[in-house]
Amino acid sequence: MCVGLVVRAPASTPVFAGYRRNSRSATFRAMNFCSNCGSTVAHEIPSDDNRVRAVCHACNTIHYDNPRMIVGCIAEWDDRILLCRRAIEPRHGLWTVPAGFMENGETTAEGAARETLEEANAQVEILALYALYNIPHINQVYLLFRGRMLSPEFGAGSETLETRLVTETDLPWDQLAFATVRNTLRHYYADRRAGEFKVHMGTIDPVQRG
Amino acid sequence: MCVGLVVRAPASTPVFAGYRRNSRSATFRAMNFCSNCGSTVAHEIPSDDNRVRAVCHACNTIHYDNPRMIVGCIAEWDDRILLCRRAIEPRHGLWTVPAGFMENGETTAEGAARETLEEANAQVEILALYALYNIPHINQVYLLFRGRMLSPEFGAGSETLETRLVTETDLPWDQLAFATVRNTLRHYYADRRAGEFKVHMGTIDPVQRG
Repeated sequence: MCVGLVVRAPASTPVFAGYRRNSRSATFRAMNFCSNCGSTVAHEIPSDDNRVRAVCHACNTIHYDNPRMIVGCIAEWDDRILLCRRAIEPRHGLWTVPAGFMENGETTAEGAARETLEEANAQVEILALYALYNIPHINQVYLLFRGRMLSPEFGAGSETLETRLVTETDLPWDQLAFATVRNTLRHYYADRRAGEFKVHMGTIDPVQRG
Repeated sequence: MCVGLVVRAPASTPVFAGYRRNSRSATFRAMNFCSNCGSTVAHEIPSDDNRVRAVCHACNTIHYDNPRMIVGCIAEWDDRILLCRRAIEPRHGLWTVPAGFMENGETTAEGAARETLEEANAQVEILALYALYNIPHINQVYLLFRGRMLSPEFGAGSETLETRLVTETDLPWDQLAFATVRNTLRHYYADRRAGEFKVHMGTIDPVQRG
């Protein structure tokens, strides 16, 4: 199940309240005030729980913080796939597949198609789930799909320096932005040669395990 | 990809700030106050964004709200699987597989195993992802795994009235708590007969589509 991927965390990770919309490496600042009534919250384990939560005793609200999903797409056109060169940090100038935070009110596949449109101006039909990567140290789960481009039209969205349709040979393997993307694309080409696309799972750790 | 599952939403859904830890049907109350500095937030579209967010102009923070994951397990022991009868609302007294909100700092598989331990006092080795269900109208994604029980030991956790190992014939099909569970188990037994477990995807809508 776990394919044992590891990647080292940066020496220091910036801390944001919430997260930066476009960041893949943000961590979270603990809640100080109740988002419902504005009172100071306590950090304690509720009576029917086993974890510390932000608890507001003024309006009797427990606030939960849970992992978030990054949804993205390997967008195919014949034997090529669509890559984006990042116009934003982290990993400015490096290459990735279109992906970003899943939004409320959409499905995982709709989110992957939306990100492909926003980042690469390309319309895709989502075909199947291809990879799930856990990144527990930053409370994220990547869900990457295979998609079929509806036309060879594409271009750079506001978060993208340039977009390219590349073959396996053209792919800038040493200029990929994220371990999730590098490993997913390695599996993708191996599966394509084998004639069968499986669903791949893995976990990205901040330090080498074992 | 989408197997076209539909289930009607309840006539009225209670609104919570945050969500109830054990609820599968909670919706969210919009943020009123900045959780970082306690100031009143505005609800507006940030300059580099295309959706309304809760924005604090006092401490310059944008707060994002994103879908959450429910992780769970079809826990197998020989030809039987483990079911829990719910001791909590919603669907008190109805049957389900062990599942609950994924927590920070864990992988999806670790979360599924944890929920199986918490709700059914059973230890499992997670085998593979089995089903992904989108529930966009309540901003949730279900990730259900197949797991192998490490022993036939199990029992009722604090959120469970009783637990049972059941065969397909024994399964209380008309007493299942959730459409996600009913449909996943239908696929599960069909796949088992066919000798191959695929990954299933679907979307649960509040109203019938088409």
